[in-house]
Amino acid sequence: MNQSESLADQTPEEAAQLEQLYADFAQNNLSPLWTQTNDLMTITPASPAVPHVWKWKELYELARRSGDLVPVGRGGERRAIGLANPGLGGAAFATPTLWCAIQYLGGFETAPEHRHSQNAFRFVVEGEGVWTVVNGDPVAMRRGDFLLTPGWNFHGHHNDTDQPMAWIDGLDIPFVSYADYGFFEFGSERVTDESSPSVSRSERLWAYPGLRPLSGLQARTSSPIAAYRWEYTDRALREQLLLEDEGQPATVEQGHAAVRYTNPTTGGDVMPTMRAEFHRLRAGASTRQRQEVGSSVWQVFDGSGVVVLNGVEKKLERGDLFVVPSWVPWSIHAETEFDLFRFSDAPIAEKLGFDRTFIQEEVR
Amino acid sequence: MNQSESLADQTPEEAAQLEQLYADFAQNNLSPLWTQTNDLMTITPASPAVPHVWKWKELYELARRSGDLVPVGRGGERRAIGLANPGLGGAAFATPTLWCAIQYLGGFETAPEHRHSQNAFRFVVEGEGVWTVVNGDPVAMRRGDFLLTPGWNFHGHHNDTDQPMAWIDGLDIPFVSYADYGFFEFGSERVTDESSPSVSRSERLWAYPGLRPLSGLQARTSSPIAAYRWEYTDRALREQLLLEDEGQPATVEQGHAAVRYTNPTTGGDVMPTMRAEFHRLRAGASTRQRQEVGSSVWQVFDGSGVVVLNGVEKKLERGDLFVVPSWVPWSIHAETEFDLFRFSDAPIAEKLGFDRTFIQEEVR
Amino acid sequence: MNQSESLADQTPEEAAQLEQLYADFAQNNLSPLWTQTNDLMTITPASPAVPHVWKWKELYELARRSGDLVPVGRGGERRAIGLANPGLGGAAFATPTLWCAIQYLGGFETAPEHRHSQNAFRFVVEGEGVWTVVNGDPVAMRRGDFLLTPGWNFHGHHNDTDQPMAWIDGLDIPFVSYADYGFFEFGSERVTDESSPSVSRSERLWAYPGLRPLSGLQARTSSPIAAYRWEYTDRALREQLLLEDEGQPATVEQGHAAVRYTNPTTGGDVMPTMRAEFHRLRAGASTRQRQEVGSSVWQVFDGSGVVVLNGVEKKLERGDLFVVPSWVPWSIHAETEFDLFRFSDAPIAEKLGFDRTFIQEEVR
Amino acid sequence: MNQSESLADQTPEEAAQLEQLYADFAQNNLSPLWTQTNDLMTITPASPAVPHVWKWKELYELARRSGDLVPVGRGGERRAIGLANPGLGGAAFATPTLWCAIQYLGGFETAPEHRHSQNAFRFVVEGEGVWTVVNGDPVAMRRGDFLLTPGWNFHGHHNDTDQPMAWIDGLDIPFVSYADYGFFEFGSERVTDESSPSVSRSERLWAYPGLRPLSGLQARTSSPIAAYRWEYTDRALREQLLLEDEGQPATVEQGHAAVRYTNPTTGGDVMPTMRAEFHRLRAGASTRQRQEVGSSVWQVFDGSGVVVLNGVEKKLERGDLFVVPSWVPWSIHAETEFDLFRFSDAPIAEKLGFDRTFIQEEVR
Repeated sequence: MNQSESLADQTPEEAAQLEQLYADFAQNNLSPLWTQTNDLMTITPASPAVPHVWKWKELYELARRSGDLVPVGRGGERRAIGLANPGLGGAAFATPTLWCAIQYLGGFETAPEHRHSQNAFRFVVEGEGVWTVVNGDPVAMRRGDFLLTPGWNFHGHHNDTDQPMAWIDGLDIPFVSYADYGFFEFGSERVTDESSPSVSRSERLWAYPGLRPLSGLQARTSSPIAAYRWEYTDRALREQLLLEDEGQPATVEQGHAAVRYTNPTTGGDVMPTMRAEFHRLRAGASTRQRQEVGSSVWQVFDGSGVVVLNGVEKKLERGDLFVVPSWVPWSIHAETEFDLFRFSDAPIAEKLGFDRTFIQEEVR
Repeated sequence: MNQSESLADQTPEEAAQLEQLYADFAQNNLSPLWTQTNDLMTITPASPAVPHVWKWKELYELARRSGDLVPVGRGGERRAIGLANPGLGGAAFATPTLWCAIQYLGGFETAPEHRHSQNAFRFVVEGEGVWTVVNGDPVAMRRGDFLLTPGWNFHGHHNDTDQPMAWIDGLDIPFVSYADYGFFEFGSERVTDESSPSVSRSERLWAYPGLRPLSGLQARTSSPIAAYRWEYTDRALREQLLLEDEGQPATVEQGHAAVRYTNPTTGGDVMPTMRAEFHRLRAGASTRQRQEVGSSVWQVFDGSGVVVLNGVEKKLERGDLFVVPSWVPWSIHAETEFDLFRFSDAPIAEKLGFDRTFIQEEVR
Repeated sequence: MNQSESLADQTPEEAAQLEQLYADFAQNNLSPLWTQTNDLMTITPASPAVPHVWKWKELYELARRSGDLVPVGRGGERRAIGLANPGLGGAAFATPTLWCAIQYLGGFETAPEHRHSQNAFRFVVEGEGVWTVVNGDPVAMRRGDFLLTPGWNFHGHHNDTDQPMAWIDGLDIPFVSYADYGFFEFGSERVTDESSPSVSRSERLWAYPGLRPLSGLQARTSSPIAAYRWEYTDRALREQLLLEDEGQPATVEQGHAAVRYTNPTTGGDVMPTMRAEFHRLRAGASTRQRQEVGSSVWQVFDGSGVVVLNGVEKKLERGDLFVVPSWVPWSIHAETEFDLFRFSDAPIAEKLGFDRTFIQEEVR
Repeated sequence: MNQSESLADQTPEEAAQLEQLYADFAQNNLSPLWTQTNDLMTITPASPAVPHVWKWKELYELARRSGDLVPVGRGGERRAIGLANPGLGGAAFATPTLWCAIQYLGGFETAPEHRHSQNAFRFVVEGEGVWTVVNGDPVAMRRGDFLLTPGWNFHGHHNDTDQPMAWIDGLDIPFVSYADYGFFEFGSERVTDESSPSVSRSERLWAYPGLRPLSGLQARTSSPIAAYRWEYTDRALREQLLLEDEGQPATVEQGHAAVRYTNPTTGGDVMPTMRAEFHRLRAGASTRQRQEVGSSVWQVFDGSGVVVLNGVEKKLERGDLFVVPSWVPWSIHAETEFDLFRFSDAPIAEKLGFDRTFIQEEVR
């Protein structure tokens, strides 16, 4: 006799006793496992988050309207509008662990400096003219660049032009909030260095293939490279496809080139909680269907195609964003050459031993 | 002018536009950062979980009543009653990441086998007679023992006597549920080995100081020692205090001995998400006040004393449990010799670079 | 035409020019590769060291005579007689990297304190009564014990009885000498603590299965356990054979139990350069033939049997020592239950990526 | 009474007994420690290797003469002439662990393919026109480039021009020979890919700042970057000095820029046994005096200056090589802007816990 059958057989007196027991549990701040096993311990991951696509055009238009109506400054700190996963009750959480927002800075505006435990990055799908200043080092933001602000680094942004600029921010805000890890400190109202160099000091010291300054041999939990420039990402992807053409092993699967942004001091992920990658599919190519533990957010950088999430196909164009909750099957199909930026919480699952991936044998 | 002042100055028309903007955000599954910065990004960790003490006597009595009313078996799986932190809305979460329950097994009862991604352990404050069977290896449970069931190991329990037994379970259920990492698989209805040896095969192979079988040299994410016996824990603590008496460095601080349970294949924590320790204070001794990132659960094993949580003093006796949310100041004061078991989510914060500790200079 | 043929074809004039070239090389402290490739870069490792067996009876008798004739004290430092591999030109090198000596201490004698970069251990095949004092901690030496003195720890020995005692020392002296890594410092003439406790402070703090003092959480390059006692080694081996009897995986191969001594803070080897293991074969059991990169030294602890080295069989009895140079095939065959201690330089090859092992499929 | 005094006091009979004892030691392949402690265990490292400078002009002229007289081909394998440290008895060992040779390849010559356990690199001080083919990947060699051939990769060289080319090879031949780690296998007589691309496939896949191909996420003991190009090394050094000019921390010490070549998959050294670095001193700058455990070889790449080794000053010009044995004090002084390549065995000492460095406080 299993447990539910047994409970079904109970007499009215037993039912009353049970009701009293449950009331006493609640009274004593206790809660039984046996009534919630199915919800708490699922057969496979069953995220409350849902797959969803946000269209860049709509996102940008709302950001632009915010630019007119909402000042940027101390208190609100940033004019950032977060993706709110429809399954997560309205909170600005793209997935249970990840924050993704469009940030908008008008001409000559400044977002004041602060620092926090949360790790952050920016990815630029279009525009330029803003410098993000990380620990006093001004870092130019341009289309295709991936820019880091690891936890507890002071940072602010300033627009050095008369034109607005928008980009996406990725942070581990939901995770840090959930786990109660957050510290925050206000900094300067203005950025501490308002110059606008084309290359940051961080890059001048660190952004070389395989070279490390002797003045920087100590261990780093996050990458010291403040900006991963489009020039290199693009070239790396192009070369992978050319090598594939030459019959060399280089791509992830046929027609699918990809790079991971890494911390040159470890070879591992750029920051302890977030993984970032860039994927390029040849026109007509498809990825195999994958299921992965942990969640991710993708943004189309260029081209057009389709993502299939849980069997549902969605059309994608430049700037569009979509989220893949844990264990949701996904595959991508390129109509044109198709470039996508991706970030995920994979380092958390990997460091804690929960990572699993299932890859379907055949491309559909 | 900061952001909130600026918003205060708005005209009715601006207010209407802003209202429309927020409605459009909601419509498009977006949420602005600037209205929620303070909640999401706190100056120091501000957990919704609260410090709380559960009295063992009450807990045990409720468990005993469950033993009469609720069968144990397939479906509910375990007669386990979880601590529900008063700040976490009634869910059986001791802290945002940790589950802690009293589990109760009547004479000759069996809890069926299953396995799950969630890591689990048992700690025994009183009683004996139950064997937990981990991957087919029967492990005796006795007062003072700390017993492991790392993720994805089949396990069940059976009571080999006519007397009930109760113990506490610790798991990372809330964390795995939150992060969507959970897999679950049902196993045998009965435990797969019903024998009742005094020492498990795991201990016979692994539980020696500094010795490792040549047949077990591969890497392990969790400790292969299924049971950490009281005999060794007690002796280690006693020797630390004796060494302190002899003027040798051995204790954490004056009168405060402590050991960490570790994975002998790495020297690190027993499981990837949970740390477990045992602390002994001499009668009259006090710990310095500490604040730590991450949360923990304590159980009094023996003796009596007091815990001060956020400045509020609580009396503690054998079996009593209390939780310390992230960054809540705590200190412990021993009336008699005072033995406490502790587990926490510290490995998560450490592996992800969020760990911080603040220790007050002086004992109060 | 290959190089040697080509050189064979040369005219007298060319030969003279070549001779002049070689003379000019020598004059300029240069040396050509092409004349020495075969010696320097062998097809498989071809050690100058040779397999060899030393008989304990002879070794002990010579040590005893030294006890009468040679004082122990400052300058010579130790009454230790090193195994001199017949292939290594008379130096006291058991293998190119490893030192192994019999050390002999008469009744009430003291070997003065010193410290050095070289890592050292003692293994006791018979006798007792000596305490080795490591950084002020007196460690009793008894049959079957394995005792550590990692690099740069002060240490001396004193005999607390009127009977002599002998044991073997293992060190990385040849390696440290070769690589020019050695530092040495004289310490106290007498041992700094002349007490004779049965258990050392190091063991009282560290020698528990899977427990680590909270006062000792920092990283350690060498094991903090000063003594690995025979009681545990013996029990671990006995249990492996019993588990094998019960049909459980526990032994290295049929009838062959083995443990590795490890650093509880890492799960790795006890010291950075040396690996130590203990092997037990059932009467009649045989190991498969192995070839390993790197060298090792074995000592028979109990029982009798045979070792086959490069196809040559040698009879072994209690206390006998033998060396296995790099890549020399070896196998062991037990006549009685057969206990052997082993140490090697395997950590060097492993950390530097040179490790390879070839195991013959079938037992002969 | 210490040991030597005691031996001095012996009677003729005792002396005879002692002589007999020593003879019996030798007869039994034994050797006492007490007669050799001082040599084997020195107070500080006392290498038989000596500091020495080789002049590039002389080296090159001898290599050129070899080009006329000695064919390159199977058997001798390479036209490489090794630095023979004057303290190491004529063997082609630059230091006890390191090999450094000038290799010379005439117009259109080929050095046949082979592979070996030994790790190798090339550094090019002048010339171009040779491709080294590593596992089938042709890698162009040009002035300033640092090129890798980690252990067990097939490799050969071919000169695609009618002009000779010379460069230096660095290997761990002496170490591998000493420790008996060497395996060797002959490959193709001709290089397996005779094309002459300006960029290797390895670089196209791997040589980007902070980017890693998703097809190459597995662990690597050695760097997958076959060529570290001068363009990046030069730029990194130039930027360090510019950053210093701007008041930013970037250099090792005033006027002294330096980079380490690293494995992008770990952030560590390019190969398990050898470290490689490039140093640039401003005209007039000096390094502080350093003593390091382990040995190194330096080559002047450009400019002129002075090295002080054990207090003896030596003038240096382009291409000159010098060796620094373990613990020998060294400092460098630049007359012009002064560029130097350096390689060492530092990873061995570091991985085995023997590393120590002493840096004099003040520049002379």
